[in-house]
Amino acid sequence: MPTLDVHFLPQLVDPAKLAGSTCVVIDVLRATTTIVQALAAGAREVIPCLEVEDALRVAATLPAGSFLLGGERGGVKIDGFDLGNSPAEYRAEAVAGKVVVFTTTNGTRAMLACAGADQILCGAFVNVSAICEVLRTGSNINLICAGTDGRITREDVLLAGAIVERLSQSSSRECNDEAQIARVAWQEISQIGDCDLALELSRTRGGQNLIDLGMQADLALAAEYCSLTVVPVYRGNHITPLADDDAQ
Amino acid sequence: MPTLDVHFLPQLVDPAKLAGSTCVVIDVLRATTTIVQALAAGAREVIPCLEVEDALRVAATLPAGSFLLGGERGGVKIDGFDLGNSPAEYRAEAVAGKVVVFTTTNGTRAMLACAGADQILCGAFVNVSAICEVLRTGSNINLICAGTDGRITREDVLLAGAIVERLSQSSSRECNDEAQIARVAWQEISQIGDCDLALELSRTRGGQNLIDLGMQADLALAAEYCSLTVVPVYRGNHITPLADDDAQ
Repeated sequence: MPTLDVHFLPQLVDPAKLAGSTCVVIDVLRATTTIVQALAAGAREVIPCLEVEDALRVAATLPAGSFLLGGERGGVKIDGFDLGNSPAEYRAEAVAGKVVVFTTTNGTRAMLACAGADQILCGAFVNVSAICEVLRTGSNINLICAGTDGRITREDVLLAGAIVERLSQSSSRECNDEAQIARVAWQEISQIGDCDLALELSRTRGGQNLIDLGMQADLALAAEYCSLTVVPVYRGNHITPLADDDAQ
Repeated sequence: MPTLDVHFLPQLVDPAKLAGSTCVVIDVLRATTTIVQALAAGAREVIPCLEVEDALRVAATLPAGSFLLGGERGGVKIDGFDLGNSPAEYRAEAVAGKVVVFTTTNGTRAMLACAGADQILCGAFVNVSAICEVLRTGSNINLICAGTDGRITREDVLLAGAIVERLSQSSSRECNDEAQIARVAWQEISQIGDCDLALELSRTRGGQNLIDLGMQADLALAAEYCSLTVVPVYRGNHITPLADDDAQ
C-alpha cells in the first residue's frame, strides 16, 4: 500500500527512510508560503541558504542586478537585504525575472533534512491543491514540518493534516501516527463549515510571534487557501517551479 | 496564567524549562500503565532502570526474595526476568510487598528527561482522573510523552490530550501548540459518545506492535479508563505511590 508519513520536525526524520520518496517541506509562517509567492510572481528561482553568510557568498557569484537578497532573522528583515520574509514583499514588480537568494533558518534546515529524497517540494496553504495534484500518484510520501527552533508548530501540523485529508479521500494509504494526529487537527478546524484559517493561524505560536512583530497581515496571505498553482521543487540547491514533465 | 505544555517526545523537552514544574511521564503501552498497576497491586516500589545490566546491578544489592525483575525488550520478557511488561502480570499475588526492579527503554528515558522538575508523576489511562486531581492546583505542568525509539506515538498523545481536556475544563491555562494538537486528538475520539478506547489503541503503532506479538489483551487493560487511583511519583530513582501529604 502507498505510504504517507508526517514528521512534526525535521530532526524526527530518519534520512534512510527518504530514499525513493517525495518530500513536501512545510513552513507555513512563512518560508514556504513566501517561496510559492515569489515563484508565482515570476522570480526565476529561489536559492535557499542556511546562514546569512552563505547567502552573501552565493550573491557574490551572481551578476549585479540579476538577484535579490531575501530572508529574516527573528522574523525581521536582515540588515542590508532587499526583502524580508513577508509574502507581500514578493510582488512581480520586485521579483519578476530575478534570482532570490533566500535565508530562513527553519525552512532551509527542513529542506536540507530531505536530502536523500527523490523529489523535494515546498508546500503552503496557498498551493495545497496543486501540491496534492502532484502527490496523488506518489507511492511513498513524507511531509516534513519545519517547526521553529526545534519546537513543533501547529500551523505546520495543520497543513500536513490538510494534505493527508485530501490524499486520503482519493486513495487508501498507510499513514504513521503523526499523519493521523495531523489529519484530526485539520479536520477539527475545517469541518466547522466557515473555517477562518487566518484566525486559526493567529492562535498558533508562530502566528502570535508575527502579531507581536506587527506582521499580522502575513497571516491573511498565508491563509489564502489554494490561491496559487505553483509547486516549487528543490533540486541541486535551486528552487524552481515544477514543470509538467517533472511530475511523477 | 498557569501553564500546561505537552512534549511529544522526551528529546523535545528543554531541561531548563522544567525547574519548578510538575511533570507527568506518559508511556501508555505499556510502562506507565504497568507501573500504576504494580503499585495498585501492592508493590512496595518500582525502581526504573535504563539498561538490563543496570537492573541486574540494582537487584544484586537487594535481599533475595524481596524483589522481582520486570521489563521488556522488543515487547518481550527479558531472559531470566520474573515478569515482562504486561500489566496483567502485576497482580497482588505476584508483587504485593515486593520491590519491582523494572527496565523499559522508552518509559525510563522519559523519566530521566524530567530530572530537573520539582515533581515527576507517572500517568496512564487507568489513573487519569487521579493524576488530574493532583495536577489541578499545579501552576506549571509538563506532560512528557515517551514515544517509541524516538518516534511519536499516538497513544501517548491521546492521553496527554485527555489530561489537557480535563484540566482546561476546570481552569484557564496557557497551552503550547502540542497541547492544543493533543487535546483535539483526544476530543475526536472521546466525543463519539461510545468511545472504544481499546479499539483506538489498536490503531496506533504501539497497539499494532502488541497485536503482532499476541498481546492484544494488554490493550484492554491499558484502556481501563480511571480504573485505579494510584499516582506513582518518581523520586531519587524510586517510584512509590504519592501520599496525601506529597500533593502540592
